[in-house]
Amino acid sequence: MYFDNAATTVPSGAAVRAYTEALGLFGNPSSPHAAGVAAREALEAARAAISSHVGCRADELYFTASGTEANNTAIFGAFAFASRRTKRIVLTDSEHPSVEECVKRLEAFGAEAVYIPTRSGILDIDALAEALTKPAALVCVMAANNETGAVYDIEAVRKAIDKSGCGAILHCDAVQGLLKHADMKRLLKCADTAAFSAHKLHAPRGIGALKVRAGLRLPPHIYGGGQERGLRSGTENVAGAAAFAAAAGEYTAEKLLSVKAVRERLVKRLSEAGNVGFNVPPKHIDGILNISLFGIKSETALNALSVQGIYISASSACSSRKGQSRVLKAYGLEKAALDSALRIGISPYNTVEEADKLADALLTARERYGRI
Amino acid sequence: MYFDNAATTVPSGAAVRAYTEALGLFGNPSSPHAAGVAAREALEAARAAISSHVGCRADELYFTASGTEANNTAIFGAFAFASRRTKRIVLTDSEHPSVEECVKRLEAFGAEAVYIPTRSGILDIDALAEALTKPAALVCVMAANNETGAVYDIEAVRKAIDKSGCGAILHCDAVQGLLKHADMKRLLKCADTAAFSAHKLHAPRGIGALKVRAGLRLPPHIYGGGQERGLRSGTENVAGAAAFAAAAGEYTAEKLLSVKAVRERLVKRLSEAGNVGFNVPPKHIDGILNISLFGIKSETALNALSVQGIYISASSACSSRKGQSRVLKAYGLEKAALDSALRIGISPYNTVEEADKLADALLTARERYGRI
Repeated sequence: MYFDNAATTVPSGAAVRAYTEALGLFGNPSSPHAAGVAAREALEAARAAISSHVGCRADELYFTASGTEANNTAIFGAFAFASRRTKRIVLTDSEHPSVEECVKRLEAFGAEAVYIPTRSGILDIDALAEALTKPAALVCVMAANNETGAVYDIEAVRKAIDKSGCGAILHCDAVQGLLKHADMKRLLKCADTAAFSAHKLHAPRGIGALKVRAGLRLPPHIYGGGQERGLRSGTENVAGAAAFAAAAGEYTAEKLLSVKAVRERLVKRLSEAGNVGFNVPPKHIDGILNISLFGIKSETALNALSVQGIYISASSACSSRKGQSRVLKAYGLEKAALDSALRIGISPYNTVEEADKLADALLTARERYGRI
Repeated sequence: MYFDNAATTVPSGAAVRAYTEALGLFGNPSSPHAAGVAAREALEAARAAISSHVGCRADELYFTASGTEANNTAIFGAFAFASRRTKRIVLTDSEHPSVEECVKRLEAFGAEAVYIPTRSGILDIDALAEALTKPAALVCVMAANNETGAVYDIEAVRKAIDKSGCGAILHCDAVQGLLKHADMKRLLKCADTAAFSAHKLHAPRGIGALKVRAGLRLPPHIYGGGQERGLRSGTENVAGAAAFAAAAGEYTAEKLLSVKAVRERLVKRLSEAGNVGFNVPPKHIDGILNISLFGIKSETALNALSVQGIYISASSACSSRKGQSRVLKAYGLEKAALDSALRIGISPYNTVEEADKLADALLTARERYGRI
């Protein structure tokens, strides 16, 4: 029973089939012969399919190996693009490490980072407007937070940037957001650059993408043979792209309803049990449910479930080695809520029956191992 | 009939099986629960297997998404590491674009590039020694050239660096070299950093690796969750790593003999036909055979074969859009030889019968479409 779908997901049958079929098109898309051309066509078909879900033009979408690489490419690229004018970078206080660590690295090159609060999972738009009264090279606001599921108001961010005249590029880490909320496609249209990852959508790992608005010319982050129209070198992962497209195609509105049903059952069961905090922002994706199971430490609960073959997480996998969650502190949790926080990642493959079992297991673990 | 194996290779049955089996271990290796631990163990098993082929310790090997990314990580990292002392970079005049383009990018940050000739596919070791009389941050010498198959003498480079006291890091692009020559493992031990790619060894694309000698602390090129002991962030591609290990395990000495037999048949047939130049360095991998089929332009020959379902290349796929080959000019080819140059990439899956058919097709194409 896998409820850690915000960390990574099981590859779907359709994604694996698309992957293995595309392995047959094994020519190098840069090769001019027929085997190369067939591979190129498959790559471009995948690009067209994914860009339709992102809501951008196919020629605005560039494949990368991961969401992390897409974030790095956008942030280092945008900084190089804009930093002669200003070195200020505005970002939320709850970005993923693949955004925040890039910004920290850029501080060594003179970048000034300005953090915008996201208390209770709500982007402080007044603080943002205030930050934008001075020039900025880049504004980073994620589409959906990876620990709380909070959906930040990218449309309001776009308006604030445009109104301010600060000239910033708006980058949106949409690794957790893509296809996970009915508003996402509309929100993503507001971003100049946006990062995506396939393995959060039941495709295999090793493939991601970056949207770059037409007309914006960023320098590459990875140099070489000039693939992906010069932005990202390296022989193209055609099979990965095909799997990404197949997985995205399966992520329908019906699937979102299934996720919602599982979430609602969990919320109902845990509410009835009582003494549970719901760290739920007003606007969120349903696939991430963050709770504080008061009375039992996160790690204890996690381990008690793991031995039963039930998998959830305490915070994000990417920060699991770093102690208490920076994101949940930014959310405003106090110590007791932080210490007992659990992230449940729900996918369309989870069922309401599983939700019941998970709720039972959580409550039993608290009863058995709880200390408070 | 695919003879473009220096561009990319067909994934082997064993590699695909290892990949799809490892997809079942879909936990995030950073997750502390049992699903994460199982994925972590598979990742480390693949790392141990591949490092045994590279001839390094497992903790000296870091996974990347490609050979290109590995080259970028080594070069940008080594430059950041050493550039306070000196900004000179010494490299051959026939490096892959994923090395040369990084160095060109670094020229914008004050790097001074010094090119060492590789005429006839032989590294000019005297010119190298001369270049190393001044301090250098980095020396880049590839293990095996991607157009001529030339194996450069990394051992002599190591000695020259050590003798000079120039303090340079020795980086070796071993994307075409790994497991393709009996001496390779010994040569690679001389490198401080070395780049590898799985898809040149009949594994799928999307996975590569970088060796970094123990004790050398390079900054990351991709920042984020701190995976790969902080050097390369991004959720680990466990299935890709498993496929890489499986493909490398199949690349035995017996396979090298099979490649050699196919090569020898081709050389024999084309020699007998006459008016063929063999652009063959004294020391080379057998998997790359570069010829000049005098009398017919490369592109014409390529197309004539492609319509018959026989795939070879004119130069490298990574530079196929850029006109005449920089590498073959460095090799010393004159115009007629350059215009008719063809690269035949031989894999263990090619047969002697295929070699005969390829020779026939090449000679027929020249007879039919040759202009000289």
